[in-house]
Amino acid sequence: MTVQLPTSFVGGDAVLWAVDRIDPVTGPSIPHAPRVAVIDGAGAQLPGNTAWVLRGVVGHERYTNREEHAALARRQEPLGRPAATCAALIPATKSKEWWQLSQDERRAIFEETSHHIAAGMEYLPEVARRLHHGRDLGEAFDFLTWFECAPQHAAAFEELVKRLRATAEWSYVVREVDIRLRK
Amino acid sequence: MTVQLPTSFVGGDAVLWAVDRIDPVTGPSIPHAPRVAVIDGAGAQLPGNTAWVLRGVVGHERYTNREEHAALARRQEPLGRPAATCAALIPATKSKEWWQLSQDERRAIFEETSHHIAAGMEYLPEVARRLHHGRDLGEAFDFLTWFECAPQHAAAFEELVKRLRATAEWSYVVREVDIRLRK
Repeated sequence: MTVQLPTSFVGGDAVLWAVDRIDPVTGPSIPHAPRVAVIDGAGAQLPGNTAWVLRGVVGHERYTNREEHAALARRQEPLGRPAATCAALIPATKSKEWWQLSQDERRAIFEETSHHIAAGMEYLPEVARRLHHGRDLGEAFDFLTWFECAPQHAAAFEELVKRLRATAEWSYVVREVDIRLRK
Repeated sequence: MTVQLPTSFVGGDAVLWAVDRIDPVTGPSIPHAPRVAVIDGAGAQLPGNTAWVLRGVVGHERYTNREEHAALARRQEPLGRPAATCAALIPATKSKEWWQLSQDERRAIFEETSHHIAAGMEYLPEVARRLHHGRDLGEAFDFLTWFECAPQHAAAFEELVKRLRATAEWSYVVREVDIRLRK
C-alpha cells in the first residue's frame, strides 16, 4: 500500500491512545503527553492541547525485495484489529554516516547482516506494523514505526524490539524514543 | 553530499536563469515563466511575480552502489562552474506501478536494464547534475533533475536526454516537463 499524504502522530490530551510511558532510548526524549492521536492525511487539527506532532510518509518500500515483499504480504494483518489494544510508536533517527552509505551497503547492513525483515517476519501476524519516513520532510525523526498487538503478544513484541536494538543496524541510530500506548 | 533542506525552483520574473523554452514531454506542462531562481534551503521568498514553485530534497542516494558512487565522485564536477551557462530543469513523475515495485525490481530496471547511471557517467564531467526528490513532500513531481553545461556541450546533453527517454525505465514516466535555461 502506498500512503502518500503524511501521517501525523499528535501527542496531546484529546483522544484515542492513552500513553503508558515515554522512554528515551538514545539521545533526548520528547515531552510527556497523556494521549496520542494517529491522523492519516494532511490535517492534524485536534481539540485540546498539543504537546508535539511527529510526521512521516509511508511511501514506497525502501529495502524489501520482491520475494520478501510477497512473504510479508502473505503473513501480515492490517492495523486496527479490535484485539490489538497495545501499541508502540518508536521514533528514530540514523546518523549522517548511515545516510552517506550507498544503497547496497545500507541494504547489506539492514538485512544480510542485521536480518531486520526476517526478524519482523517471525512476529507476524501477531505484531502489525507500519513504517513512516520523516527525513525528506525535514522532521526531527527519520523514521516513525507504529506497532500494534494484543496484550498476550506484548512480551513477544518486547523480544522483537530487543533483538533489533542489538543489531549492527542499530549502531547507526543516534536518537530513539519509545512510546507505549493502550487503547 | 546530503542536502536535507528542500531546494525551491521558482518560476517568475525576478532573477537569475532566463527561460529559453518550457516543453511538455509527457502529460500536462506548467505555466510559462520568463525566469527561474534556484534557492537552496527552506525560504523561497523572491521579489516579483511567481508563476510556480517546484520543491525537492537532494537527500541520500537511492540506487547507486558503492562502486558507482566512487566512480561518479571521481568524475563529476560541482554546479556553478562559470562556463556552464546552459541549464535544464526536468521535472518528472513516475507511475503508481513503479512505486509499487520492490527495491530490487526498481534497481534492475534503473541500472541493469536501462543503464541510467552508466549513461550519465559518459557525459561527466561536461554535464553536471543534481537530483531532487519531491515525492515524500507531496509535490506534483517525484523528481526534479537540474543539469548544467557549457554551450559547446549542449548537443551532448541533448543526446543524453534522448538516450534516457528511450529506456525501459522511462516507460514508467507519466509526466515530464523540459525547461531549458540560459545564464
